[in-house]
Amino acid sequence: NNNEIIIFKTRGEYWQGCSSGGDSSKESSRCSTPVLDADRSDRLRDKMRKRIESGDHWFSLEFFPPRTASGAVNLISRFDRMGSGGPLFIDITWHPAGDPGSDKETSSMMIASTAVNYCGLESILHLTCCNQSKEKITAYLNKAKHLGLKNIMALRGDPVGSEWEDEEGGFNYAIDLVKHIRSEFDDYFDICVAGYPTGHPEAETYEADILHLKEKVDAGADFVISQLFFRADTFLKFVNDCRAIGIKCPIVPGVFPVQGYQSLRQLAKLSKLEVPEEITRVIEPIKDNDAAIRNFGIHQAVEMCRLLLDSGIVPGLHFYTLNREVATMEVLRQLGLWNEDPRRPLPWAMSAHPKRKVEDVRPIFWASRPKSYIYRTQDWDDFPNGRWGNSSSPAFGELNDYYLFYLKSKSSKEALLQMWGEELMNEQSVYEIFTCYITAQSNPCGHKVLCLPWNDEPLAPETNLLKDELEKVNRRGVLTINSQPNINGKPSTDPIVGWGPPGGYVFQKAYLEFFTSSENVTALLKILKKYEPRVNYHIVNVNGRNWTNANDMQPNAVTWGIFPGREIVQPTVVDPVSFMYWKDEAFALWIEQWAKLYEDESPSRMIVKYIHDNYFLVNLVDNDFPLENCLWQVIDDMFELLSEAQELLSDGAISE
Amino acid sequence: NNNEIIIFKTRGEYWQGCSSGGDSSKESSRCSTPVLDADRSDRLRDKMRKRIESGDHWFSLEFFPPRTASGAVNLISRFDRMGSGGPLFIDITWHPAGDPGSDKETSSMMIASTAVNYCGLESILHLTCCNQSKEKITAYLNKAKHLGLKNIMALRGDPVGSEWEDEEGGFNYAIDLVKHIRSEFDDYFDICVAGYPTGHPEAETYEADILHLKEKVDAGADFVISQLFFRADTFLKFVNDCRAIGIKCPIVPGVFPVQGYQSLRQLAKLSKLEVPEEITRVIEPIKDNDAAIRNFGIHQAVEMCRLLLDSGIVPGLHFYTLNREVATMEVLRQLGLWNEDPRRPLPWAMSAHPKRKVEDVRPIFWASRPKSYIYRTQDWDDFPNGRWGNSSSPAFGELNDYYLFYLKSKSSKEALLQMWGEELMNEQSVYEIFTCYITAQSNPCGHKVLCLPWNDEPLAPETNLLKDELEKVNRRGVLTINSQPNINGKPSTDPIVGWGPPGGYVFQKAYLEFFTSSENVTALLKILKKYEPRVNYHIVNVNGRNWTNANDMQPNAVTWGIFPGREIVQPTVVDPVSFMYWKDEAFALWIEQWAKLYEDESPSRMIVKYIHDNYFLVNLVDNDFPLENCLWQVIDDMFELLSEAQELLSDGAISE
Repeated sequence: NNNEIIIFKTRGEYWQGCSSGGDSSKESSRCSTPVLDADRSDRLRDKMRKRIESGDHWFSLEFFPPRTASGAVNLISRFDRMGSGGPLFIDITWHPAGDPGSDKETSSMMIASTAVNYCGLESILHLTCCNQSKEKITAYLNKAKHLGLKNIMALRGDPVGSEWEDEEGGFNYAIDLVKHIRSEFDDYFDICVAGYPTGHPEAETYEADILHLKEKVDAGADFVISQLFFRADTFLKFVNDCRAIGIKCPIVPGVFPVQGYQSLRQLAKLSKLEVPEEITRVIEPIKDNDAAIRNFGIHQAVEMCRLLLDSGIVPGLHFYTLNREVATMEVLRQLGLWNEDPRRPLPWAMSAHPKRKVEDVRPIFWASRPKSYIYRTQDWDDFPNGRWGNSSSPAFGELNDYYLFYLKSKSSKEALLQMWGEELMNEQSVYEIFTCYITAQSNPCGHKVLCLPWNDEPLAPETNLLKDELEKVNRRGVLTINSQPNINGKPSTDPIVGWGPPGGYVFQKAYLEFFTSSENVTALLKILKKYEPRVNYHIVNVNGRNWTNANDMQPNAVTWGIFPGREIVQPTVVDPVSFMYWKDEAFALWIEQWAKLYEDESPSRMIVKYIHDNYFLVNLVDNDFPLENCLWQVIDDMFELLSEAQELLSDGAISE
Repeated sequence: NNNEIIIFKTRGEYWQGCSSGGDSSKESSRCSTPVLDADRSDRLRDKMRKRIESGDHWFSLEFFPPRTASGAVNLISRFDRMGSGGPLFIDITWHPAGDPGSDKETSSMMIASTAVNYCGLESILHLTCCNQSKEKITAYLNKAKHLGLKNIMALRGDPVGSEWEDEEGGFNYAIDLVKHIRSEFDDYFDICVAGYPTGHPEAETYEADILHLKEKVDAGADFVISQLFFRADTFLKFVNDCRAIGIKCPIVPGVFPVQGYQSLRQLAKLSKLEVPEEITRVIEPIKDNDAAIRNFGIHQAVEMCRLLLDSGIVPGLHFYTLNREVATMEVLRQLGLWNEDPRRPLPWAMSAHPKRKVEDVRPIFWASRPKSYIYRTQDWDDFPNGRWGNSSSPAFGELNDYYLFYLKSKSSKEALLQMWGEELMNEQSVYEIFTCYITAQSNPCGHKVLCLPWNDEPLAPETNLLKDELEKVNRRGVLTINSQPNINGKPSTDPIVGWGPPGGYVFQKAYLEFFTSSENVTALLKILKKYEPRVNYHIVNVNGRNWTNANDMQPNAVTWGIFPGREIVQPTVVDPVSFMYWKDEAFALWIEQWAKLYEDESPSRMIVKYIHDNYFLVNLVDNDFPLENCLWQVIDDMFELLSEAQELLSDGAISE
């Protein structure tokens, strides 16, 4: 009878792949640490392979480094926005004239590092080798490795002079770079090389060029991205020709949606490609109408991409974005490749640095400043995994430079002054700004308050659930900077509070964090006694004077999820120790981002400084997640007690 | 205003005790791994100190080692029963004539080790030093340390001859042993010494004796347990005299409830104490009526204990149990010290070995055989803490000796044959035994089935929740050995399913584990496809042929709890790798505990062996804990499919 059983298709291979079977051998057959998202620890070529095997088309996006620091700030926000659409990877071109390997905020290296570390995007750094010494190239690669970059696009680059001359013992072709990477760094990097659907402009023949491509692949490249082309047939023929001579790795088409007349002409000249007559015929008559050209470009790119994908030999699409969003996003939307409903693997934005791949617990405090958290923990060797308390992590790094380009506000000083007030009258003026931010309404000068020093984005949809209550308390000087509602087992696919794989349930304890005056805190501490042990609190001022009822200083898990076939995931904790590091940052933001907008000694600056010096930072957790959130009642009780005390005093005045 | 705040009584000292304050110093100020029960990592003297400080009276229990192996089995069950009443510790006397330091199952050392490791009881091992070499004593202490014993009662012991002679360079008094322990093992052990409320019988004077006690304490003893006495006044005077000469450590009265005429006379003679006239006057007339004497003893002990506790200088009571349960439990009940509703810190029985103090995750498979799990993991260096997957534990030890005294069935071979059948007819006879165990009804021969090889105790109250369904499926050959209902957020204080500190919520995924025939498994595998991904399964036979849909072989958390101010606790997982070790044990129990009851080649033995050879062990988890448990539906569907297939076959027979 046992023999019959094997006729069922089973998933027993899971076990087989993990252990030698059912014998109780003495060695441990325990698998490595489970993670929520198995893909997270894959390298790019494995992710690509899995997508090809499953027939799931992907897209990727190419960007070039910006020229100015403010351009860098804008590009980083663009990474965040375009990253939400779900690219398999992005790539950053190498800009030899822009000091590409330096620590400048506009360098290719820094932009790629930011994309990986702070935006959590799988990224490829381009690298060109001509006119470079081996030592220099090795140094670039070491730096890239150190920064957490795992993928290199190996290119020759354009020679400096007009005449091309082989350099003895140097890098003359991309293949030399591929070989160098493999010989110096073994299998550490995934390597991509360029393919030319109509042959490299300098190649003797098309046939010689694809033979050269095969040599690059044989030397160790993992996949090919093609130069731009204008007709699907061109690319499909190219792929077939490559396959015919034995190139087996993925070959990805480089798609260029026409976005303007000038950029098209420039690119065609640069890549020595001729724009086909059917395109020039349409474009020439509308060359002064940017919108019309863009619409045509979108239409034309969608048509071409459909042909490519329908061919069955194109697994994904690579887009030359020219650092613009609209056209590429629209093409992807029309193709159904843009992820309109990005599922959050965890409630917070992950980093893609290899050493952070196991990280799945963070303190809640940096919820609106994830890049700052990543920056301040960049030197950690281990990251909390499974639970916060198990981690033997080092302390948080200082955050002295509030002007790091990935931390900088997206708004200009002028815009900030308009939002937060050219002139503050008193503490109430500050309460008003907070209230306007919560309600998304205009301040008295008619400007919407779209951000605060602690929140660079408008209110999260989840926080919006608390909007009415938040408005009420901010108006009265409970200046909220972070909060979450309680959740008692909503499906993990819930569009607002869901995260993690489908089929699970997510939970939260209600959380509220705010600045408030010492008078309020005096009353609050008295009120909180009534809420023991239901409510946990931490209260601290800028000098570190503090109160807490955190038992044994243990972290409190405030967000967790239960999933099929998994251990419990608890991505967010309120950790008493981390809170002391966070409070330094939270208080400093009053000065660094707000007070410094105003003249030294100006009344506005003094008001913000007074708050910084005298207010307390408070966090509250309602542990009883199945019941109605009691934190609003706590605040109400606090105001009630204050007004009773006020009455007592005024009675006293009368009786005297 | 800030100054006003400090007038509130706060709990800020928690923070102060943990870190140097709010400055963001570079060193990590992270506390050690959080645990659910902070007490768990305290040493005995600290637990005692905390109880004294909180005014919370405790009790402790003294036992002596048994003479026979079956006596050891009985004593271990007594530890489990009496441990549930909540003693602060138990102690095991040193029996020099019984090879006390050996590996014999009846030795003092082994009994104390079993109490600590397998019963999870804080335990003190007595040790006597007279007529022993220093090397021998050091070897005993090293062995005790290795076994996880942390507390020693340092005694002189009785000299071998009738004449006492000082031994040059040897141990002559308990104080020599105290000094030796402190000099050789520093502060590792907590040390207890004996006090004599009426002076040691060999002491020159009472005053000299308490001065001698002070020397023992000054030499490093942590607390004192008194020899028995008959009047509260005797002890209270003794404590006051001790305090007067500067003995500051806890002094615990040794209470001896009179349990019989002979034992009283014997003990009095041994300890050279005179039984007071008010006791002999009552006892002599009833000396042949054991029950009457015991009742008197209970009454008398309760009266005396009340006086002691009411004095305000007695923090706890130590009981000389003489290895009996009834009298001591009754005294403790009447005093209100017996814990009638033991709160489970975790769903499973913990070990008290120091290296297991962080352990808070286990596979569910050993739920009814916790001692076996502890035995098979005794060589691990680390224990899973917080999550199973993080542990880099070694593999499970073999379990070849099913006759280890702490694993042995409490029932005799005769009793087992009565329960499980003197003669089995067929597989159905086995189904019937399982069904009788579930329903707690008599088998066809009129004997109740109180245990099964996989369950040494009657059905747990929690499993009782599933009784009707379990009965139904066992009757049809789904032989269940482990199960739990789904729980969606019951209070942690729930009397049946609750565990952990109050104020929390506990959750479970429904779990079912059973043996069943390969025919059933064939149908089950087909049915399970309909339940993907809601139901996780593992199915394996004795040879290791297996099927599972456990994604990436990750463990599945099936019991977890959410508590105020804590990270999530998930004490029970279904771990695919451990299951393969468990299945060896689960299958072997058929042979070792059941088949071997019968003659070689006997039909009964062949029937059990057939099941062992041909049945599969199945475990099922219903991941959707908020919905109604679907596992019964899975089994129903399986039987439905089988009967449809049966019909098809019989139709076929007709049409042929």
